[in-house]
Amino acid sequence: MEITRKNFKESLEVIETAINECSFLAFDGEFTGLNHAGMSHAAIFDTPEERYYKVVQGASDFLLNQFGFCTFSYDGTTKTYTAKPFNFYVFPRPFSRAAPDVRFTCQSSSLDFLMSQGFDFNKWISEGVSYLRPVDEASLKDQIIKKHEVLSSPAFISPSGGSQPPGINKSPVEIPPEQKDFVDDICKRVEKFLESGEHESYSLPPCNGFQRKLTYQSLEAKFGSDIHLQGKTNDKKERYIVVTKIKDSDDVKRIEENKQAQDLAEVDDAVGFTKVIKMISQSGKLIVGHNMLLDVAHTIHQFLYPLPQDYEEFKSMCHCVFPRMIDTKLMSNTQPFKDRVENSGLSYLHTLTQMPPFVKPEVVLPEEWDNKYKTEMLHEAGYDAYITGQCFIALSNYLGQCQSPPTERIPPGSPLLQPFLNKIFMMRSLDIPYMDLCAPDLNPARDHVFHITFPKEWKNSDISQLFAQFGNVHIGWIDDVSAYVALNSKSVANYVLKTLCKKGSVYRIRSYNDHKNPKYDEGTI
Amino acid sequence: MEITRKNFKESLEVIETAINECSFLAFDGEFTGLNHAGMSHAAIFDTPEERYYKVVQGASDFLLNQFGFCTFSYDGTTKTYTAKPFNFYVFPRPFSRAAPDVRFTCQSSSLDFLMSQGFDFNKWISEGVSYLRPVDEASLKDQIIKKHEVLSSPAFISPSGGSQPPGINKSPVEIPPEQKDFVDDICKRVEKFLESGEHESYSLPPCNGFQRKLTYQSLEAKFGSDIHLQGKTNDKKERYIVVTKIKDSDDVKRIEENKQAQDLAEVDDAVGFTKVIKMISQSGKLIVGHNMLLDVAHTIHQFLYPLPQDYEEFKSMCHCVFPRMIDTKLMSNTQPFKDRVENSGLSYLHTLTQMPPFVKPEVVLPEEWDNKYKTEMLHEAGYDAYITGQCFIALSNYLGQCQSPPTERIPPGSPLLQPFLNKIFMMRSLDIPYMDLCAPDLNPARDHVFHITFPKEWKNSDISQLFAQFGNVHIGWIDDVSAYVALNSKSVANYVLKTLCKKGSVYRIRSYNDHKNPKYDEGTI
Ligand SMILES: Nc1nc2c(ncn2[C@@H]2O[C@H](COP(=O)(O)OP(=O)(O)O)[C@@H](O)[C@H]2O)c(=O)[nH]1
Ligand SMILES: Nc1nc2c(ncn2[C@@H]2O[C@H](COP(=O)(O)OP(=O)(O)O)[C@@H](O)[C@H]2O)c(=O)[nH]1
Repeated sequence: MEITRKNFKESLEVIETAINECSFLAFDGEFTGLNHAGMSHAAIFDTPEERYYKVVQGASDFLLNQFGFCTFSYDGTTKTYTAKPFNFYVFPRPFSRAAPDVRFTCQSSSLDFLMSQGFDFNKWISEGVSYLRPVDEASLKDQIIKKHEVLSSPAFISPSGGSQPPGINKSPVEIPPEQKDFVDDICKRVEKFLESGEHESYSLPPCNGFQRKLTYQSLEAKFGSDIHLQGKTNDKKERYIVVTKIKDSDDVKRIEENKQAQDLAEVDDAVGFTKVIKMISQSGKLIVGHNMLLDVAHTIHQFLYPLPQDYEEFKSMCHCVFPRMIDTKLMSNTQPFKDRVENSGLSYLHTLTQMPPFVKPEVVLPEEWDNKYKTEMLHEAGYDAYITGQCFIALSNYLGQCQSPPTERIPPGSPLLQPFLNKIFMMRSLDIPYMDLCAPDLNPARDHVFHITFPKEWKNSDISQLFAQFGNVHIGWIDDVSAYVALNSKSVANYVLKTLCKKGSVYRIRSYNDHKNPKYDEGTI
Repeated sequence: MEITRKNFKESLEVIETAINECSFLAFDGEFTGLNHAGMSHAAIFDTPEERYYKVVQGASDFLLNQFGFCTFSYDGTTKTYTAKPFNFYVFPRPFSRAAPDVRFTCQSSSLDFLMSQGFDFNKWISEGVSYLRPVDEASLKDQIIKKHEVLSSPAFISPSGGSQPPGINKSPVEIPPEQKDFVDDICKRVEKFLESGEHESYSLPPCNGFQRKLTYQSLEAKFGSDIHLQGKTNDKKERYIVVTKIKDSDDVKRIEENKQAQDLAEVDDAVGFTKVIKMISQSGKLIVGHNMLLDVAHTIHQFLYPLPQDYEEFKSMCHCVFPRMIDTKLMSNTQPFKDRVENSGLSYLHTLTQMPPFVKPEVVLPEEWDNKYKTEMLHEAGYDAYITGQCFIALSNYLGQCQSPPTERIPPGSPLLQPFLNKIFMMRSLDIPYMDLCAPDLNPARDHVFHITFPKEWKNSDISQLFAQFGNVHIGWIDDVSAYVALNSKSVANYVLKTLCKKGSVYRIRSYNDHKNPKYDEGTI
C-alpha cells in the first residue's frame, strides 16, 4: 500500500492494526545519497566505532526519502503468512514559516539510481509525508502558544508587526498613483462584504508584498476595529489576506483562539510519519532488515533523536528504540547459511531462499491489497521490506530443518534465532561481522594486519608484489596513498616488519596496532 | 523550447543560430536551494566582498537545476522583436564510473516552491542535460587515453584486472553446485554464437557480480584468445558482459581502439550543457538578467570554472566570461525608473512595463515555437528569461522617450544604457546598489551606522526604542544577537555613542568602522 500525505491520515488505523497484530515486521529505507566524495562509508578494517562515525556523517547530511515496512502475521491453521507491505514517501515539507527548513545532501549517482528503479521524485516532493522529531514538535507548539499570548493582547490586533521583514520603515506609505485603483477596489470589496452579512470572513485575491502593505494600511485606517486581518498562503505559494468581521472584543479573542488551535493542529499533522515510527518502536515487535545499519541509524536520526556522538550511547539508543532486531544479511553470512549463500545481495538471497534446500514460505497479500508486488519492484522500500521478510522466514525455517528431529516452522521468538538477535551486520568488514547492540563488540587480533602508505601511483598489484613472499594478502584501501594489508597466513606475520621496513623506501609500513596507537609507536622509536 | 538530453544534440544548431543572430539575450536560473540554515544570503550592510563570500558558499553547495535563456532579434522593418526562449533541465548525471559523482545540497523549501511552480523533478533527474567543467573534461579524456595505453598491452586482454573491487582474492573460485547450470548455459550460448558466425558480438543476459566472476573465469578458460569480454551497464543499471569474436591480434587492437573512441565520445556527450554556456560566452552578446548575481555566479562555477576565493578575481572572471551584462533589477531601482517601480519583483515589473507610461514592446515567438508561453509560467527559467528580456526592452525604450526629442527605440548597444553596463544588482543593500565589474566598487560613508549586540530576546521594537531620540532607524539583522542600525538623519550620528555607550548595559554598541576594524578599536580603548 502506498502512503502519501493524501491518504496518510485515513490509513493510520490500518497501519496501527497491521503493526499490532503481526508476528514480526521487516523494513527498508531509500536515501538521497550514501557517502561523501572521497570517503568510503565502509572499509574492511573499520572498528565498529569507526564505522559508526561514518554512518553519523551520512545520516546528518543525506536524507531517507522512502521508508517501507511489511508486517507478517502467521496463521497456524493455513500455515500461511499474511504480508501487509506499506511504502511511504517521506519529505520534510516546511509546512509553516516557523517549521524547520531542512537542508540535505544529494549524491547524483543515488538520485540517478533511484530514478532508474522507478522512484517518483515529483510524488516525493509534492506528496511525501512530513515528519517532526519530538523535540521540534515541542518547540513549535511552544512558539505557537507564546505567540498567541502576545497576539491576544489588544495592541497586536493590527497585523503590521507580523508579516513584514525587519528593517523596513513602518510608518504609513503614500499610495502611488498607479495603485489608487487597486486600493479603491480592495476597499469596495470589503465594504460590500461587511454590508452583505452573509459570511463570517472573506479572502482577498492574492497580490504582491507592496500591495499587501497598502491593503493592511488602508483597511486598518478605514475599518479600524470592525475587521480583523490575517495573512495566508495558498497552494501556489501566493500570499493573500483574509478579512473577518468583528462585533465585539470577544470576536477577536475567538478568532485568535481558532487560529491557535489551527496552528497547533497543523503541527500535529506535520508530526506525520514520526507517528508511524513511534508505533513500530512501541510495539516491541521483532524488526527485520537486510544490511540494516544505515536504515536503523537514519530512521532514528531523522524521525526521533539526533544520533549521539558516542558509539556506546548509540548502541543503547538503538536497543531502546527497537528492542528486537535481526539482520538477514548477517544471517546469510553466518553458518549454516554462509556456505550456501555465495552472494548475500537481497534480490539474490530472495531467489535462492525460494529454492531447495530452502523451503519457499507461503506468503499471501490480503485481498484488498494492491497487486503491484506480483511483479518485481526491487529498490522500492516497501517491496524490499516485503522480500526481506520472506528471506527471514525461509532462513529461520531452515534452522528448523537442520534440527533433529526437523521442525517445520521456526517462529520469530525461537531460541534458535537468539544468536542473531540485536546484532547489526557490518558490511565489508573482514573480521568483525556485526555490531552487537547488547554486548561489547568483538575485538579480533590484528597482528597479521599492516598499515602502509605509498606513492599515489601504486595499485593493488604493487602492494601484492611487495608482500608476495608472505603469500596472498587482502588489501583494504583507506585513500589513494594508504591501505591496510592483511596476510592470509597469519603465521608469517612476525617477519613482515623485519623484512619490509627499509630505510629510504618509497613506502612506510607499520603494524596495525602501532598505527592505531601512534603514541606507543613514537615512544619506542 | 524545452531542451533535455533527448533533444539536446539535435537542437545545438538551432541554439547556436539563435545566439549568433540575436540582438541580446536574457537568462535566468533555478536552484535547489538559496542559503544555509541560520545564514541569510544578503544583509543590508554587506560590503560587495562580504556579499560575494556568501554567494560562493551557496554556489559550491546548491545546484543550478534549470537554466533558461531567450534570444531577442530585432527586425527594423516590422519594428518587432522575435524571441526564442530555451529552457534546459540540467543534471550532473554520472555517465561513467570515472565521471564526477556530484554531491549537492537541497533546501526543502526551495524544492517545495519549485514543485508548486511546475518544476518536473523526474524529468530533471532522468532527462536533464549533463555538463562538465573544462578541467573535468580534460582529466577524464586524459584518464581514458592512459587506461587504453595500459589495456592495449596483451597482458591486459583478460578482464580480471578491470571491474573487480580491490582487495578481493583473484585466484579462480570453485563453481558451487547450484551455479553449474548457469555456467553451462553461458558456455553453450557462447559456443552457439561462435559457430553461427552471424554477428560480431553477443550480449549475455545481466547477472549478479558473483555470476559475472564465474562467467569471466569459465569463458576465459574455455575459449581463451578466441573471444574478448567487456563489462557493460544497461538502462536498468544491471551489469552484463559482451562477448566479441577474435580472429587475430589486430581484432583485439581494433576492439580496444573502438572502445577508446566510444569512451571519448561519451565524455564529449557529457560536456553537454557546458557547450551552450561557451557559445553564449563566446558570442560576446549583451546578457540581461533580473537580480542576476546568483545566476551569474552559479553559471560560471557549475559549468566553467570554480569560483575564486578572491572577490576582485571574481569580478574580472565574470567580465571575461560575460563581457556585457545588464541587470534589469538594478535598472528598475535606479532613476528615472525608481520612482515609477514601487516593486521590482520580476512578475510585477513585467506587468508594469506593459502599461503606460511604458510602451509594451512588440515581441513575437517564431511560428515553429511551442505555444506554452501564451500563459504565464512564472519561475520556469525559460519563461522568466523571456519576460526579463521584455522588461529590458521596455525599460530601454523608456530612456528614449525621456530624451528630447524622444527616440522610439533604444538598441542594446546604445550609450544611454552605458550607466547600467556590467553592474550587478546588490539585493537588499541599503547604500551600495551594485557590484561594478569594471571599476572599484562604491564605498559610501557609514558614519551613521552602528553595530550593536544585545540579548536574544530583543526584537525590532527594542532597538527602535533604544534609538528613539535619534529618529527613525533602519535595522539590519546579522543574527539573533547582533544587528546594524542606520540612522535616517545622519546629522545626529555624532551623539549616538556618547549617549548610548553606558557601563553595565545589556547591549554593546560600536561604530560601523570600529566594528569592521576591531584592532583600531582595541588600540584606542
Ligand atoms: N592509488 C590507488 N588507489 C586506489 C586503487 N583502488 C582503490 N583506490 C582508492 O581507495 C578508495 C576506496 O576504494 P574501494 O575499496 O573500492 O571502496 P569504494 O570506493 O567505496 O568502492 C578509492 O576511492 C581510491 O581512492 C588503486 O588501484 N590505486
Ligand atoms: N532576536 C531577534 N532576531 C531576529 C528578529 N528578526 C530577525 N532576526 C534574526 O535575523 C536573521 C535575518 O533576518 P532577515 O533580515 O529577515 O533575513 P532573512 O532571514 O534572509 O529573510 C533571522 O534569521 C533571525 O535570526 C527579531 O525580531 N528578533
